[in-house]
Amino acid sequence: MRSITITAIEGIPMVKAGDDLATLIDTGLVHTGLKLATGDIVVCCQKIVSKAEGRVVNLQNIEPSAFADSLARRWEKDPRAVELVLRQTSRIVRNDHGVIIVETGPGWVCANAGVDESNSLEQDTAILLPEDPDASAAKLRAALKKRHGVDIAVVITDTFGRPWRDGLTEICLGIAGMNAMLDLRGKTDLGGRELHHTVVAIADEIACAAGLLMEKAAAVPVVVVRGYNYEPGEGSAKVLIRPAEADLFR
Amino acid sequence: MRSITITAIEGIPMVKAGDDLATLIDTGLVHTGLKLATGDIVVCCQKIVSKAEGRVVNLQNIEPSAFADSLARRWEKDPRAVELVLRQTSRIVRNDHGVIIVETGPGWVCANAGVDESNSLEQDTAILLPEDPDASAAKLRAALKKRHGVDIAVVITDTFGRPWRDGLTEICLGIAGMNAMLDLRGKTDLGGRELHHTVVAIADEIACAAGLLMEKAAAVPVVVVRGYNYEPGEGSAKVLIRPAEADLFR
Repeated sequence: MRSITITAIEGIPMVKAGDDLATLIDTGLVHTGLKLATGDIVVCCQKIVSKAEGRVVNLQNIEPSAFADSLARRWEKDPRAVELVLRQTSRIVRNDHGVIIVETGPGWVCANAGVDESNSLEQDTAILLPEDPDASAAKLRAALKKRHGVDIAVVITDTFGRPWRDGLTEICLGIAGMNAMLDLRGKTDLGGRELHHTVVAIADEIACAAGLLMEKAAAVPVVVVRGYNYEPGEGSAKVLIRPAEADLFR
Repeated sequence: MRSITITAIEGIPMVKAGDDLATLIDTGLVHTGLKLATGDIVVCCQKIVSKAEGRVVNLQNIEPSAFADSLARRWEKDPRAVELVLRQTSRIVRNDHGVIIVETGPGWVCANAGVDESNSLEQDTAILLPEDPDASAAKLRAALKKRHGVDIAVVITDTFGRPWRDGLTEICLGIAGMNAMLDLRGKTDLGGRELHHTVVAIADEIACAAGLLMEKAAAVPVVVVRGYNYEPGEGSAKVLIRPAEADLFR
């Protein structure tokens, strides 16, 4: 039987700035009773990566600009949080219905520049995206490889909305050890017909598969995907970003 | 260990108009050696549903309108295929770079109104989406329940592109037996903080998880997801479609 197994890694301690993620994930693996094997994909949510990397901002230190103030007044938001969003922004894609959708410096298009206010505003903090999620994934991969002596891939996920469809899904923000895209162009189906237009965002599909077990309320920040025969490679989540000039919706 | 297993159902015969899908899936289950159990989600790609329902159109019988002819000339497409797209269209969302993104009668926003030319143009045919994918899912669910005496859910998937991100992913086109959305608003995380903005398009995540094994080249049209604790319900994929008036990109 050709199967893939997705396992929730439970028992990972709360993450603080400066923590070594590989150590914390090890604690979870032991608690869960799972031993990493070559070919596994370790899927890790953005929030614990950002926290470990110290990407938590104290809003009390943020001085909103006049523009941030004006947006915040109009949409009833915290002007300091809006200021933080604008500081991560290289282009405002849409600003309506109380939503600010932007292109960030590294190119992600998402609401609020990925600045996470939902779980942190009570403490007057906000969490930024990792500065370079591919590098974060590569670092975690190297640390886990060293500890376990196995060759694995790492995917860092975030929760994004999307046009046209309601509800959030997981996307791949950073990747290491595997290609983020699966290019089937030129291959044929069983009937011998060539497949066209068939480049699959396989890393986003892996992120979604992991999302089934990464329930926010249950605090499962890491999931292991076993049995997916990925294409090894250095990997970069940047190939998942459509270049602005080819994007009809930016 | 909290795990989800995704299994490829292999050995499903080629599907023709009028075929009973439950019978063909049974052939695959026996070939694969998997017995359906209560709580399983049977994920089935749109193409075999459409074929079984006779949604295959002979392009030789399609007379293109002047508008279809003009679009086809501009973008070097088959005018009969463009005509077929226009007949499924209630709104053209974007028409540029050789892409026609439309809103279909039932409300899906997708390229080419979901008309599948890729594997069928050689035979001068095209495949339309099922007329009512929720109803298709409910029918398949009832047939499988009756045959196996187990309570399952059914998800029908299609492969869609999306703005901002390159590569295709699977989405849920029709669903039966489970809620397509997982609404976490009002729940709290482990720190006791309330989760906001947290409505998860769980059916799309299931579609993506199944997509990892539904490789087009390998002709795996059905996948079984086991171990995901879904919210039972009648279910409808329509809740995944953002209403046009709330959509900033339509």
